[in-house]
Amino acid sequence: MAKPRTKGSILPESILDAATRLFIERGLDGTSMYDIATELGVTRTAVYYYFKNKEAMLAALTDNVTRVAGKMAAELTQYQDLGPVEALRNLVTQHARLILTHALQFRVVERNEHNLSPKRRDNARASRRAVLTSFAEIIQRGVDSGDFRVVDPKVAAFAIIGMCNWTAWWYDPSGARSQDEIIAMLADLAVSSVRQDGAKRPRAAGVSESLRLLRKELAYLERRIEDEPT
Amino acid sequence: MAKPRTKGSILPESILDAATRLFIERGLDGTSMYDIATELGVTRTAVYYYFKNKEAMLAALTDNVTRVAGKMAAELTQYQDLGPVEALRNLVTQHARLILTHALQFRVVERNEHNLSPKRRDNARASRRAVLTSFAEIIQRGVDSGDFRVVDPKVAAFAIIGMCNWTAWWYDPSGARSQDEIIAMLADLAVSSVRQDGAKRPRAAGVSESLRLLRKELAYLERRIEDEPT
Repeated sequence: MAKPRTKGSILPESILDAATRLFIERGLDGTSMYDIATELGVTRTAVYYYFKNKEAMLAALTDNVTRVAGKMAAELTQYQDLGPVEALRNLVTQHARLILTHALQFRVVERNEHNLSPKRRDNARASRRAVLTSFAEIIQRGVDSGDFRVVDPKVAAFAIIGMCNWTAWWYDPSGARSQDEIIAMLADLAVSSVRQDGAKRPRAAGVSESLRLLRKELAYLERRIEDEPT
Repeated sequence: MAKPRTKGSILPESILDAATRLFIERGLDGTSMYDIATELGVTRTAVYYYFKNKEAMLAALTDNVTRVAGKMAAELTQYQDLGPVEALRNLVTQHARLILTHALQFRVVERNEHNLSPKRRDNARASRRAVLTSFAEIIQRGVDSGDFRVVDPKVAAFAIIGMCNWTAWWYDPSGARSQDEIIAMLADLAVSSVRQDGAKRPRAAGVSESLRLLRKELAYLERRIEDEPT
């Protein structure tokens, strides 16, 4: 039989992971500090060493998720040099990865917003707003450049954020698709949802440019048809 | 001063609406039967007349959402006669409307799944599976017909369901856009996310058909270029 571990041998991250699983299964009120210690096979003292109560754990979880989201928003300047299509693809990739790697924490924070201190609640809201603004700005840029269709940037941003966030409710690590595959698929669906139909032809290009691109495509197809079995 | 109303003058639906608002604001455990009665300006007796406790309210809320979703799945046969694009548009419209008109209830049920009886939990899961299957089947049909790109039907279904479900977290009835506008935008984004690029050219058409369509487009543009100012 394994000897219960003491505080020296566990990390606060392991405690938060176990707490997150139990909060999702049983709710915050349905989970005790004793349950969390039992789940980890440690003594209650080891848990109390790091967290004085469940509220302190929820606060730490919220700070984790909020901090990562804030860091992400701060890194957004790097996308200024990219075209709207690539900028959106990168942003979806980054946001979907954040959610997929923090799926249960994300749900625990969402479910327990009413248990957060006003300051933490404000921080969580500010980080959500920063994410929305990033998406909406890139979408607006794509609409202006003609790379994207004329969509409402805020509604389209919420739709794409919803695609990413909802993974926290359905992604199954033991499922057929890896996180990276799912992220690539979501980025592709998100870009396609706003991209101009016939995206290679810029909206503002006018008839002459469209003609040039069509002639190119035609020449390619005419070369191919010679090889095609009939 | 308004006289507290008695059971004769309130409907169970009003009690559930008030309970839903408080459950979201304060959590299930942070809300008492007395709070719900106060919110409605009725006596506790009036509330107890319909619901013996908060768990009974949560059960009724879950049954409402589950019943509507089940009804929706049953109506799906009507989409068999539609092409994949129109079928998907209708399905998104229907699902987004369900969520937007039950936004808070949907979130309360999601948050409190651990408080449901095993039977209700199974029902809620079955209705989620029915929604997923409907979306995935229509997407598969569109991939097969060449109307949609080659996407993973299940991942695309989850992405589109996520677009719809996430409205429960962001839709603001006092915002700039009406429910109908948002529903139409989501349907458009969802269809575009999977639709074949250059959707008028079927995937299976082969080089000859592509050539025919390109030549047609070219002829149209060549006629137009004669009128274009340079």
